[in-house]
Amino acid sequence: MLNFDFYNPTRILFGKDRIDEISNHIPSNAKVLITYGGGSAKKNGLIDKIKNALGKRIVLEFGGIEANPHFETLMKAVDIVRKENIDFLMAVGGGSVIDGTKFISIASYYKGNTENILKYGFSLIPKDAAEKYIPFGTVLTLPASGSEMNSGAVISHGDGKFPVLSEMAFPQFSLLDPALTYTLPAIQAANGIVDTFVHVTEQYLTYPVKGLLQDRIAEGILLTLIEIGKTSVTEPENYDARANHVWSSSLALCGIVGAGVPKDLATHIIGHEITASFGIDHAQTLAVVLPSMLKIRKDKKKEKLLQYAERVWNIKEVKDEDKIDKAIDKTREFFESLGIKTRLSKYGIKKEQIPLVIERLKEHGMTALSETHDLTPDISQKILEEAM
Amino acid sequence: MLNFDFYNPTRILFGKDRIDEISNHIPSNAKVLITYGGGSAKKNGLIDKIKNALGKRIVLEFGGIEANPHFETLMKAVDIVRKENIDFLMAVGGGSVIDGTKFISIASYYKGNTENILKYGFSLIPKDAAEKYIPFGTVLTLPASGSEMNSGAVISHGDGKFPVLSEMAFPQFSLLDPALTYTLPAIQAANGIVDTFVHVTEQYLTYPVKGLLQDRIAEGILLTLIEIGKTSVTEPENYDARANHVWSSSLALCGIVGAGVPKDLATHIIGHEITASFGIDHAQTLAVVLPSMLKIRKDKKKEKLLQYAERVWNIKEVKDEDKIDKAIDKTREFFESLGIKTRLSKYGIKKEQIPLVIERLKEHGMTALSETHDLTPDISQKILEEAM
Repeated sequence: MLNFDFYNPTRILFGKDRIDEISNHIPSNAKVLITYGGGSAKKNGLIDKIKNALGKRIVLEFGGIEANPHFETLMKAVDIVRKENIDFLMAVGGGSVIDGTKFISIASYYKGNTENILKYGFSLIPKDAAEKYIPFGTVLTLPASGSEMNSGAVISHGDGKFPVLSEMAFPQFSLLDPALTYTLPAIQAANGIVDTFVHVTEQYLTYPVKGLLQDRIAEGILLTLIEIGKTSVTEPENYDARANHVWSSSLALCGIVGAGVPKDLATHIIGHEITASFGIDHAQTLAVVLPSMLKIRKDKKKEKLLQYAERVWNIKEVKDEDKIDKAIDKTREFFESLGIKTRLSKYGIKKEQIPLVIERLKEHGMTALSETHDLTPDISQKILEEAM
Repeated sequence: MLNFDFYNPTRILFGKDRIDEISNHIPSNAKVLITYGGGSAKKNGLIDKIKNALGKRIVLEFGGIEANPHFETLMKAVDIVRKENIDFLMAVGGGSVIDGTKFISIASYYKGNTENILKYGFSLIPKDAAEKYIPFGTVLTLPASGSEMNSGAVISHGDGKFPVLSEMAFPQFSLLDPALTYTLPAIQAANGIVDTFVHVTEQYLTYPVKGLLQDRIAEGILLTLIEIGKTSVTEPENYDARANHVWSSSLALCGIVGAGVPKDLATHIIGHEITASFGIDHAQTLAVVLPSMLKIRKDKKKEKLLQYAERVWNIKEVKDEDKIDKAIDKTREFFESLGIKTRLSKYGIKKEQIPLVIERLKEHGMTALSETHDLTPDISQKILEEAM
């Protein structure tokens, strides 16, 4: 097992009919800015319920945070925070709204040029980089990113995506009410299952380091997603399926799975460039990349892929090579069963367009990906050809 | 899945050679009281290493915190904290030292009579019950109780044991270095495996509530303990076995396993009274009670016991009744394989002595135990007779 730090002070309020409780976790004299996305939370009355829960506090609203939240959009909220002396942010939405709110929290009193917040890469932004940061809570409506229970965000600027990591970015609390996800379109529920699945495989399908417990927890989340994935998509008001979906999404990226084990972020990194190149949904790009990446990299990942085949897919009676192939096929079938296509061609992409993605990877310095830092652009090219 | 809160702000520093890092998590001007137990940490040089890591801070020591830490002992440390204006506690040891330190933290500036701290039962002691509390960190030397990553303690007073639960009782940080456990006597390592195992079964072997992910995590810890238990006891310097042992112990009672599922604390509660009656080690009482409790309560716990048999012990080809019996036998064999006896008679206890335990249960109001609150003293009697 590798040395690790684990720290996650976010308070989780999980379950039905708890919106009124958020008031217990926000200072009674706080001036609150509610942040949200495209407006469905506004239309379906959730924002009103939250305002009601906030009681006599002064509450402002900032809507319109888009998928892959953009620096310029978020800076408009930063202006409001500064001008109105906001002292608590209440994010209502999924990963994009929560990620955006994390940026607003840090940017509002960041020392120096706010664009520099995007220049830390995978290094933690220290607390003293800002005069202060604005504490925030979240009400989750889309279980996928895990942002509601971690300290990371991805922010878009120009046509690039940038990680933002800081202990300032932990929500004070997150309300996870599975019933708030009932109105999600089926495709978004399916995207959420795939996103969560890949968050886990990226911390699990690497090479063994005797993190036996971490492996078991990773397998536990994968098994749960396989068990409830289809139901969560096709029966949106199945509380138990959604509850396990929501809790799996949060735990997948809260630090427990990745503590003390290697990570391979190649699927997300290649996926981001596919989204940027062709506008395909984030989770759909993951569903395209993962099975093909595993196929191309199966020698590197042999031991963990065998374990995955046996423990997650219960594939036992065949020889090792076949086990791995079968497990990869099963992975692809699982994504397809949720209604998510796993071939680039099915999204209208042609083989000749692959170099566009490869060029972007090079441009962003993504030339030595994976847990062993040897996944070159040539190999990325092969993965995408395999994914046609 | 039941509604739940999850909150755990303790920072974990896991791994080899990290003692010097504790300094980063203690205010540089803090006056520190190191708390420890019987003196092995003193003799083997660990206390000196910690003092060295604390650099120029003023450091005092308080040793002699006993197993099942006693109110009177801890009040001596409280006197030191008050007189010397201690502002950070550094606990070095296992569950008893850490539990004791939690009490010292809360008691030092508790409003009113410190004996009242023991009267909250399983209710949280609110932060405003103390003028302030003393923040503390831990360096773990005995993986068992999970106290290093939660907000609970058990404190002895007279011949009773009392729970102390409070958000004040979360360590600021815990250093978990598996190598610091190498010098443990084998019996204590074995006790640690059993204690952890039972912490998990108490949150798992109840009735199903569709907490699919929680079940998978519980099973993951149990499978890990079964995989590494014997090695951790017989090869004390096997780093990987100890690393998985340590991390399993911490995660077992950090709140993740029990989030949203019922709990059955009967094994611990009956076990506590056996310790108080006959002085048998805590974990040994658990090894005695658990298999017999499962046998007596197997109808109540049928669905989860079947799942346990299949997923944890891989018992599949027999009929349900036999599956459960086999799983209970396997549980007993596992404890015995670690060198822990599972029969009261093997500890020199005679059947005629059982009523002493039952009287104590009645005296402490422990007359409606288990997840369904229907485990009466008569049933406790049957369990202990089964355990002879």
